[in-house]
Amino acid sequence: MPGELEIISKLRRVRQNNDDVSVGIGDDAAVIRTTGGKDLIVCCDLMVESVHFRTEWMPPRLLGRKALAVNLSDVAAMGGIPKFAMISIALPSRFGSDFIDEFFGGLFELAKACDISIVGGDTSSSPDSLFIDIGVIGECETGKAVTRRGAKIGDQVFVTGSLGASALGISLLEEGFRLGDSTNESAPMRRQAILKHLSPEPRLKVGRELAEARLATAMIDISDGLSTDLCHILEESNCGAVIYADKLPVAECVNSIASTVPGMDCLRLALHGGEEYELLFTARPENMRRVFEISTRLGIEITAIGEIVGGKGLQLRRDGVSEQIKPEGFEHQI
Amino acid sequence: MPGELEIISKLRRVRQNNDDVSVGIGDDAAVIRTTGGKDLIVCCDLMVESVHFRTEWMPPRLLGRKALAVNLSDVAAMGGIPKFAMISIALPSRFGSDFIDEFFGGLFELAKACDISIVGGDTSSSPDSLFIDIGVIGECETGKAVTRRGAKIGDQVFVTGSLGASALGISLLEEGFRLGDSTNESAPMRRQAILKHLSPEPRLKVGRELAEARLATAMIDISDGLSTDLCHILEESNCGAVIYADKLPVAECVNSIASTVPGMDCLRLALHGGEEYELLFTARPENMRRVFEISTRLGIEITAIGEIVGGKGLQLRRDGVSEQIKPEGFEHQI
Repeated sequence: MPGELEIISKLRRVRQNNDDVSVGIGDDAAVIRTTGGKDLIVCCDLMVESVHFRTEWMPPRLLGRKALAVNLSDVAAMGGIPKFAMISIALPSRFGSDFIDEFFGGLFELAKACDISIVGGDTSSSPDSLFIDIGVIGECETGKAVTRRGAKIGDQVFVTGSLGASALGISLLEEGFRLGDSTNESAPMRRQAILKHLSPEPRLKVGRELAEARLATAMIDISDGLSTDLCHILEESNCGAVIYADKLPVAECVNSIASTVPGMDCLRLALHGGEEYELLFTARPENMRRVFEISTRLGIEITAIGEIVGGKGLQLRRDGVSEQIKPEGFEHQI
Repeated sequence: MPGELEIISKLRRVRQNNDDVSVGIGDDAAVIRTTGGKDLIVCCDLMVESVHFRTEWMPPRLLGRKALAVNLSDVAAMGGIPKFAMISIALPSRFGSDFIDEFFGGLFELAKACDISIVGGDTSSSPDSLFIDIGVIGECETGKAVTRRGAKIGDQVFVTGSLGASALGISLLEEGFRLGDSTNESAPMRRQAILKHLSPEPRLKVGRELAEARLATAMIDISDGLSTDLCHILEESNCGAVIYADKLPVAECVNSIASTVPGMDCLRLALHGGEEYELLFTARPENMRRVFEISTRLGIEITAIGEIVGGKGLQLRRDGVSEQIKPEGFEHQI
């Protein structure tokens, strides 16, 4: 089967000349110019049972919430304000009314909190797996959307929040741990990791402020892992980057659980773990102070983890030694 | 499992106050007011393998085409101009690169013909069924979108094209006939019915002209069958309708094949057959001439089949006798 990147590359080869489309296929979202002084930001995200989630470990309320949240994260990564959503769902017969109520309950809760109107969608039965596809339409001021293309040599690389917890969460779920478990003293830390995976928080306010103040030169959300998503920025911006192992903000729960699990590689989780839905962005070094002011004002951690350099590819510096890092993030497959 | 109507009714119960949304959940598409003198028209349509199509009878090129066409039909039913599309596809491993090339080939061909830009989407593997969801964004002048709500007593009821062929096409496919068959003299008629099902033609130009000239008071595309879709207009417009059996434009291939198949009920196919993607609309009787002028100019058949009356429900008049017709169109299940 062709992978996601192969399909995207096929699609991008179909040249489309349309002056209204300022950003097309291949970024977190598309940007469409309108006549009213605003750009539209549009994106969609598929969630497929057994590929992106398993219903035995994903409560329906959190599934509904996450299906919308991952889209909002794409809008956040463009610096936009999400406004409208469309929801398509293909439902196998084993799911009943309770599932639907909980699923839409979680989804509407997040939509309400973010002031998003659900304007439509489609429903179908499904012969086997549960499929969810959500499309979101957002907006930003004309020309202010942040793409993956603007990183320049000398820019600092930043990441919001902390890293590694979502990947740890999925490992724990695979080992049989569940959200409600409370059997021993490491339960709160496990719960934190699992929640980061099941209930990610889209970084809408940070993304918006960075775009509004024109601080971010390039931005992406970490869905496939820091290494893969940073490489997307590097490819699109045609440059390289160095990041520092000791600066990566490894999540507290990852460090805490690693201390009790021999052989657990925190750095690897932070570098390559997917579905973090943190924002990864670049900014001019002279704007660092303003970036950290946003962090302080919103109460959201932002960490400088490296810088943009000439050449190509991603270097990791650890104990004074540099090594080339390959993007090891995943195309989804649980 | 909750049916489509139950889910939609759950969704509509969640009241959302948003002045930007002039038409929300429950019409062919949503209408969103923008600041630039245009309304956005947004819709999406799911196509699920074994529910909406079978790959053994649907060539991938036509599948790609139809997945977009059914969305364009929704935009046509609002009187809008489609502009942008997003494509989500979850692909089982049994489909290879050839399938993808053909699928997107058919899709892009229609997109190009209708001047639509593909701006994004999402791809995933799928554990079992092929799943396609396409979202389309269109536009029309502020306030000109045609909903299901505007039919008034005395309006004439019209339908474009002819009826019954798509439902006949699916029966033929189920019986084992295929698009390429050419074994006997009825093959061209069978081919016509099968093509109507596999490769519907969205009525964009008619829909657009009816809306632009403000001729259609209510409009819908026939996806679930004339009886069901007309009842949607009647419910939303709070009125009844009488239609005349002898005025229904039964497709030539339906009449022709019926003459060789004992017991085949042409009227039933025309009344209840789904997936026609013809436009069903109402207009003031004094505008009939202008409606037929559009028909002549575009070379697309438009037939007056009845009128809007007081009360509720749908009456069929046949040989001077009236009977109440229940909506018998289907929620999709092949």
